[in-house]
Amino acid sequence: MKNGEDLRSDADEPDTKRKKCEDTETVGNDDAHSCDTIPGQQSQHSPSVFAFQDFKLIKVLREDARQKFVTLHGSLGPNDAVVLLERKHFDVPSLEKCLRHTTCEETFHNDIYSTFDVFSGGHISHMKATLIHPATEKHIAKYTEREPFVIRETPELYKRVVLPCIEESKFSFQWVYNILEKKTESERIVVEDPDPVVGFVMVPDIKWDRKNIEALYLIAIVHQHNIRSIRDLTNEHLPLLKNVLHKGQKAIQETYGVTSDKLRVYFHYQPSYYHLHMHFTHVKFEAPGTDALRAHLLEDVIDNITLNSEFYQQKTLSYVVRENDALYNSFQDKNYFRKESE
Amino acid sequence: MKNGEDLRSDADEPDTKRKKCEDTETVGNDDAHSCDTIPGQQSQHSPSVFAFQDFKLIKVLREDARQKFVTLHGSLGPNDAVVLLERKHFDVPSLEKCLRHTTCEETFHNDIYSTFDVFSGGHISHMKATLIHPATEKHIAKYTEREPFVIRETPELYKRVVLPCIEESKFSFQWVYNILEKKTESERIVVEDPDPVVGFVMVPDIKWDRKNIEALYLIAIVHQHNIRSIRDLTNEHLPLLKNVLHKGQKAIQETYGVTSDKLRVYFHYQPSYYHLHMHFTHVKFEAPGTDALRAHLLEDVIDNITLNSEFYQQKTLSYVVRENDALYNSFQDKNYFRKESE
Repeated sequence: MKNGEDLRSDADEPDTKRKKCEDTETVGNDDAHSCDTIPGQQSQHSPSVFAFQDFKLIKVLREDARQKFVTLHGSLGPNDAVVLLERKHFDVPSLEKCLRHTTCEETFHNDIYSTFDVFSGGHISHMKATLIHPATEKHIAKYTEREPFVIRETPELYKRVVLPCIEESKFSFQWVYNILEKKTESERIVVEDPDPVVGFVMVPDIKWDRKNIEALYLIAIVHQHNIRSIRDLTNEHLPLLKNVLHKGQKAIQETYGVTSDKLRVYFHYQPSYYHLHMHFTHVKFEAPGTDALRAHLLEDVIDNITLNSEFYQQKTLSYVVRENDALYNSFQDKNYFRKESE
Repeated sequence: MKNGEDLRSDADEPDTKRKKCEDTETVGNDDAHSCDTIPGQQSQHSPSVFAFQDFKLIKVLREDARQKFVTLHGSLGPNDAVVLLERKHFDVPSLEKCLRHTTCEETFHNDIYSTFDVFSGGHISHMKATLIHPATEKHIAKYTEREPFVIRETPELYKRVVLPCIEESKFSFQWVYNILEKKTESERIVVEDPDPVVGFVMVPDIKWDRKNIEALYLIAIVHQHNIRSIRDLTNEHLPLLKNVLHKGQKAIQETYGVTSDKLRVYFHYQPSYYHLHMHFTHVKFEAPGTDALRAHLLEDVIDNITLNSEFYQQKTLSYVVRENDALYNSFQDKNYFRKESE
């Protein structure tokens, strides 16, 4: 265990927050070709140096493609060196100017969608651009950050606001039934148990490339219809839940060599679709939706129901809705947000 | 609510996974100066174009400094356009070559630590480098990804493995007591309640710059000593927990204008230090440690203890330990991992 003050922070995170702060302090940017932050210190004009000309790589210590961050162990002369490299965030105030002067190479084109490798101030592409043009209001809405609100959903709010919203949505489960009945994706099935009560089908999530084991992401869909979410679970479902957990873990170990102590197994609440399903992801993968405000560990759900069969009918559940979600609109229609601010 | 197949994926995430897949398919890279992926398609040599020369920015739709990703709404001629820009990840196989040929500008230097703006193939810096040189084995270990293991900590394992490890660590809380007694950081206190039983002190987390409201991160530290973690909580602590929740939310609204429906309030288990404290973060901020395998929402903890005073003495708790953590070593000494794999 580490000692003292150092324990207060997880020090091996990239420098996002500090840089953000620098960004806000940067005033203007006269270089029309730059898409990059020119931080305050740089105006001191330190002399350029070839600091790494003798660098020899020994090992890549850590790599984070999501954050564009890599940590290297190497040598510089007789000594060891650790080098942290991270891509800089965009200098947003100068982005318009920058984009107009960049050259691009089109890498994909289909209808209104195209992607480019973008070159700014050199012959090497440091970024990718995706263009949707002409864009409709729906495209603009889809890519706009929508304001999040934390909901504290009591059992009473579930019955009065959420359940009617689910029932009104008349969402089709045909694509789910197609998977369960092997009409589609049957070649993708990793494991299945055809039992109508405790059975399920497990398939790779469409977000997973099925190659990068550390980004492993599988979905188990239960055969039973009409279990909408964890809100519907009681102790009568314990055999189903335990069966999915154990057979799912076993299949992942046999198929991908990933043991159960490397897996995060959970429900979403709210889920994306109201037919009961579980997520199996690799703990090394920071999958979207693993936040404590959305993910409910399957083993915790089993424990909670075992102690109290009605746990998920009695529990207040917290989660985030976003402006213009159907659920957000339902809460607003029922004056939930007005009540909160009163 | 959206319809059909589309609901299966959160489509507005940056393209990390697909790009990762492309990366592994890229074979070699002859440009010694490039620190970037040159994807397969580019070898078709599409002609360079000034695709964005008429681009007019209307609005920045979304910005993610952590992922180096920005979404723009603008116009191209008479039509609306949506543009997604993201920094490319590094082409790791060519990083060594690349680093040797780049020029750098030193932006910070203190002892063995320095930072640089790195220029590769142009006059604009697209990345930041941090150099630790000479580096010791401890530095190398600190920046190496350590293998994670999911622990299922039963009450029995807590008593037999975890509690002795906490007690042996002889970790000093002096810096915590200094804050509580206003010997340090008193000018940083956002709110305090001096009551010895239900009181607490709230300060900004050192990771927060105190400017970017959407990255808001505060810590509430309770005045009571000897509450190590949520494992120690029973219904006698309910007045303390409710007091911290409500006074903390109120102070954040008054000081920063952030309402309670924008806050994620939680404990870590395992915590970084064993003096009870709570995290208050903005829901828009994907803070490290919000994963369901580490974060326990304060309101859930209050609910669980209200229903069953002994909840956290009876519950099995799941979390991740990493190779060479003191706790990992304790579990290994007690043959936890051997038992798991038998």
